[in-house]
Amino acid sequence: MITKYTSGTPIRTDAVVKDFAGIDINKFPVDYKIIDGKFIFSFDMQDSDIVFGLGEAPRGINKRGWIYESFCSDDPFHTETKSSLYAAHNFLMLNGSKTFGIFIDFPAKIRWDIGYTKPSRTEITVDGTDFDIYIIENKSNKPIDIVKEFRSAIGQSYIPPFWAFGYQQSRWSYPDKAAVDGVIKGYNDAKIPLDCVYLDIDYMKDYKDFTVDEDKFPNFAEYVKEKKEQGIHLIPIIDAGVKKEAGYDVYEEGVENDYFCKTEDGEIFEGGVWPGIVGFPDFMQKEVRDWFGAKYDRLTDAGIDGFWNDMNEPAIFYSTKGLEKALNKVKSLEGENLDLSKFFNLKDTFLGLSNSPEDYSSIYHMIDGKPVCHDRVHNIYGANMTRAAGEHFAKKFGDGKILMFSRASYIGAHRSSGIWFGDNHSWWSHILLNLKMLPSANMCGFLYCGADLGGFNENATRDLVLRFLALGVFTPLMRNHSALGTKAQECYNFENPEDFRDIVTVRYRLIPYLYDTFKKASENNDMIFRPLAFDYPDDKMARECETQVMLGNECMICPVYEQNVSGRYVYLPEDMTFVKLSGENAETKPMEKGVHFIEVALNEVPLFIKKGKQIPLCKPAMRTSELNTEDLTYIG
Amino acid sequence: MITKYTSGTPIRTDAVVKDFAGIDINKFPVDYKIIDGKFIFSFDMQDSDIVFGLGEAPRGINKRGWIYESFCSDDPFHTETKSSLYAAHNFLMLNGSKTFGIFIDFPAKIRWDIGYTKPSRTEITVDGTDFDIYIIENKSNKPIDIVKEFRSAIGQSYIPPFWAFGYQQSRWSYPDKAAVDGVIKGYNDAKIPLDCVYLDIDYMKDYKDFTVDEDKFPNFAEYVKEKKEQGIHLIPIIDAGVKKEAGYDVYEEGVENDYFCKTEDGEIFEGGVWPGIVGFPDFMQKEVRDWFGAKYDRLTDAGIDGFWNDMNEPAIFYSTKGLEKALNKVKSLEGENLDLSKFFNLKDTFLGLSNSPEDYSSIYHMIDGKPVCHDRVHNIYGANMTRAAGEHFAKKFGDGKILMFSRASYIGAHRSSGIWFGDNHSWWSHILLNLKMLPSANMCGFLYCGADLGGFNENATRDLVLRFLALGVFTPLMRNHSALGTKAQECYNFENPEDFRDIVTVRYRLIPYLYDTFKKASENNDMIFRPLAFDYPDDKMARECETQVMLGNECMICPVYEQNVSGRYVYLPEDMTFVKLSGENAETKPMEKGVHFIEVALNEVPLFIKKGKQIPLCKPAMRTSELNTEDLTYIG
Repeated sequence: MITKYTSGTPIRTDAVVKDFAGIDINKFPVDYKIIDGKFIFSFDMQDSDIVFGLGEAPRGINKRGWIYESFCSDDPFHTETKSSLYAAHNFLMLNGSKTFGIFIDFPAKIRWDIGYTKPSRTEITVDGTDFDIYIIENKSNKPIDIVKEFRSAIGQSYIPPFWAFGYQQSRWSYPDKAAVDGVIKGYNDAKIPLDCVYLDIDYMKDYKDFTVDEDKFPNFAEYVKEKKEQGIHLIPIIDAGVKKEAGYDVYEEGVENDYFCKTEDGEIFEGGVWPGIVGFPDFMQKEVRDWFGAKYDRLTDAGIDGFWNDMNEPAIFYSTKGLEKALNKVKSLEGENLDLSKFFNLKDTFLGLSNSPEDYSSIYHMIDGKPVCHDRVHNIYGANMTRAAGEHFAKKFGDGKILMFSRASYIGAHRSSGIWFGDNHSWWSHILLNLKMLPSANMCGFLYCGADLGGFNENATRDLVLRFLALGVFTPLMRNHSALGTKAQECYNFENPEDFRDIVTVRYRLIPYLYDTFKKASENNDMIFRPLAFDYPDDKMARECETQVMLGNECMICPVYEQNVSGRYVYLPEDMTFVKLSGENAETKPMEKGVHFIEVALNEVPLFIKKGKQIPLCKPAMRTSELNTEDLTYIG
Repeated sequence: MITKYTSGTPIRTDAVVKDFAGIDINKFPVDYKIIDGKFIFSFDMQDSDIVFGLGEAPRGINKRGWIYESFCSDDPFHTETKSSLYAAHNFLMLNGSKTFGIFIDFPAKIRWDIGYTKPSRTEITVDGTDFDIYIIENKSNKPIDIVKEFRSAIGQSYIPPFWAFGYQQSRWSYPDKAAVDGVIKGYNDAKIPLDCVYLDIDYMKDYKDFTVDEDKFPNFAEYVKEKKEQGIHLIPIIDAGVKKEAGYDVYEEGVENDYFCKTEDGEIFEGGVWPGIVGFPDFMQKEVRDWFGAKYDRLTDAGIDGFWNDMNEPAIFYSTKGLEKALNKVKSLEGENLDLSKFFNLKDTFLGLSNSPEDYSSIYHMIDGKPVCHDRVHNIYGANMTRAAGEHFAKKFGDGKILMFSRASYIGAHRSSGIWFGDNHSWWSHILLNLKMLPSANMCGFLYCGADLGGFNENATRDLVLRFLALGVFTPLMRNHSALGTKAQECYNFENPEDFRDIVTVRYRLIPYLYDTFKKASENNDMIFRPLAFDYPDDKMARECETQVMLGNECMICPVYEQNVSGRYVYLPEDMTFVKLSGENAETKPMEKGVHFIEVALNEVPLFIKKGKQIPLCKPAMRTSELNTEDLTYIG
């Protein structure tokens, strides 16, 4: 049962697709207070209670013991003490002494103090008084039923094309044809399967959206076709900002039609991103979404059938005004004595130029004909960019034809796209962070998701990439991605690439099972990945497990996540079959409920299959298009 | 057996106290090459080999799979991908197919590629050709014997006063008398034992070394005496840089006597640190060390008997020249179009001002009457500051009277001081980082050591501080320290301080055991903390264990290091007694060799005692001075 409470006049987010009559917030069943225009309410927690939710967010599956903030943030340092990542997924569930879900449909900041200030209390602060809150309950008191109920209200999750379950290789950047061909050759030569190669920002002409640099990719359409004949999909990036440049038609159309975000004075807000100064399309307006969405035609017309939308929090390196102000500050110091406070002040000034609250506050959108400050809708900006594309694709191509995923997101965007978990690091700890986000994202409707395998920022070691990939074998998006200036991270660039082949081959053998599990989860508003607590509510060890998750109805996955170890500890909440997959081999061993240490080699993928269950494996292939999904063997 | 090889004319570091005849490097038993003035050699590793060493450094006990750099670094972000922390501890040991140690006595950069570029090879690059390399072998092939042999060559480790084993509370800052008294009252009222309160930079007058701000601490000597009567030691910080200020006698003496580091032109090098512009004493000169060391008298005369030396890598926020250059760069942009590359260039300019290679290269020391570029001796700068103090204390007070520990260090400094592991974070992962550095630091002679418990930077939660302290119970330095602007981290500031009392009380009950273990380790060139691999060389599970360490001859410690869990996995390499200590309670349970999950409450300290061994516990007290170390009970 879902009960909707309405406060004030909420800005429409379209997160919820079912109709609910909004009950006045005065009837809200929990005590609340309003302080300085913020709506604050709290509930107590018992020691054994778990708090699930918040989708793409830092820290654990159990969110207790920290303050989170719903605020889409372009911040690559995903350390433990961050409060936000790129998404704002305002769904939370208490499970234990009571079991209920909360969804706060509100596109500005929300602060979730989940037992941080007081360990036994969750306090939620909504930064405004215009919102809808949905309370989700279910007689069963089962967490999965709360999720299903919630998911049925927000609509069916995006299903990508079948080939999007293939292995994908990315890097910032493969800047030209030669680089892309090199990657494909590298994989082919090493006999490692591959379905997609990514085009990061350098494929564009001067970072202009919907352009292709003809010097780097002459006869682009032909090239795309040639790659597709090789079974390879090219996936270009699209950024939120549109380069300010005379003669660049997208920018000029945007100016002419008043499609860009404004300042308070009605000027176009000018921010600096990859192309230098850009205009930010005002995706809050349907007309702008339709216009921007149709621009993707330029690439789909060339045969492109997949995209990733980036920088749409939006990320703003600096604004023209912010930079001017900083430079004026420097000038004002001329002749003055340079002391410590002035030094820190200057350093902070330049550090604070990117994604500055001041800049965000100076951006205005038009909503229902009225200017609305960006602060009030920050968390749906990126989601609406992606929706622009997704709705256009659905209309033009029908469902499931175009691969689409986004960095920034809000619940609702799960209907038109997937997400990736942003610019992570080549840190061992990020294997577990990736694992932990999977069930949380699933709760919020995001099924097609995954992290940058091997880690995006900084240098990855061979063993890290192998262990990361062995988790990635199970994530719907299985993409290896790394940053400019980092050590080459393509599988074939490491010693003994046959170990990588063994891991990626397992993925291809599992695709029929994974795709089927994915589709069913989408159709039934179900999760692909569940916390163990969902399946074993009375098992204390299972309830607090943060290093293993359930996959589908059959499996439990448990990546190895430390360096220089031959395996890991696992907890089996019931008797299961331990399976090690490697290349075409599958080794199985029944194991008893309880605590074990399992040995897993670098070229092995560990998983557990529940007693009495089996999963199908197909024969490997170099491309998803070559998979025979009918010819299956079963293990378990 | 130790064999010394000498290349060129090494700069004297005084790391080694035993005399060894240096064999010419031409006879070095390993192939080497010299490229661009760098000395490079490598050795192969078998899969099962472990590489120990490097003391205070990032990542695991087993250093395989990363590149480390010996370069004392003021960098608070101790993430997995860093190469250096604040120390340069150039001792490494291969253990497995062969067992030998290497110590490279060289005060400039060394790069340790330990299976990063090629998983089966360690390649070491010494950034110069004037050095000594010691190869340490032992017929027993036991790692502990390699360590003892090495340690006997570098001299006996510093032993602090007995009271330095008490619990210590720090924060940046308790700026005045009232704040310090508040801390003592807080602990007294909560009945939590305490022996030391720290004075961070704000106790000084304008951050001037060896001054006390009389407004904040009127009648300082009397106050110190009063605190000592309460059983509390005040521990002031001393920074490396001396404020440039007319009339400040320490600075003026330094100028007059030519005691400060110079630029190439013979001017005093001017860097900005806490007090603004400072001169950096040239600690390479004995005369300067004697002068600076004697300055501590100003505080010991006032009754102070403990210090921490900070900022001595040296940390340099900016140099006068660097800042001028940055500001000129800004001015040169006047009127120019502000584009992306200019923005990043400016941002990087200001970010790069701190601890810049350019500044380090422009500093000159006088060694044997000749100017020597700082780059060549960077890693012994801080060590020589601490030596200045330590040698002065030893001469004036005898051994074991003054508590002294440092942020920067080099092997050799272990004879006159301890270390702390620098500005860590309130991250759960830093509990394990702390644990892992203990045996590594011990190998290099640093016995009195510990991390900032609860984490220095960012906000700590109650459960994190409790779990961190439960490890800190065993570290010789047990200090809770936190940064300006972070959540209060003193035990009494959290809910239910009785849980904290239970943990800290355990420390006091263990002090007789810990102090005895410490003293023996110092006297016998032994380690307090050992990797499990040292004790169980044939046990694969023990060899790769990175989350438990051996303590003394009796114990194995195993902190809980994750949030929202009721315990942790442990591996017992033999039958042991599981002990949970909490306040005055001790719960024991025999457990069998193998894999277990142990439950540990937030107010409990877990440890294992070897079969047939016992450890003593005394009665708790509020101060170390009140401990009765004769009245012991035994558990095990």
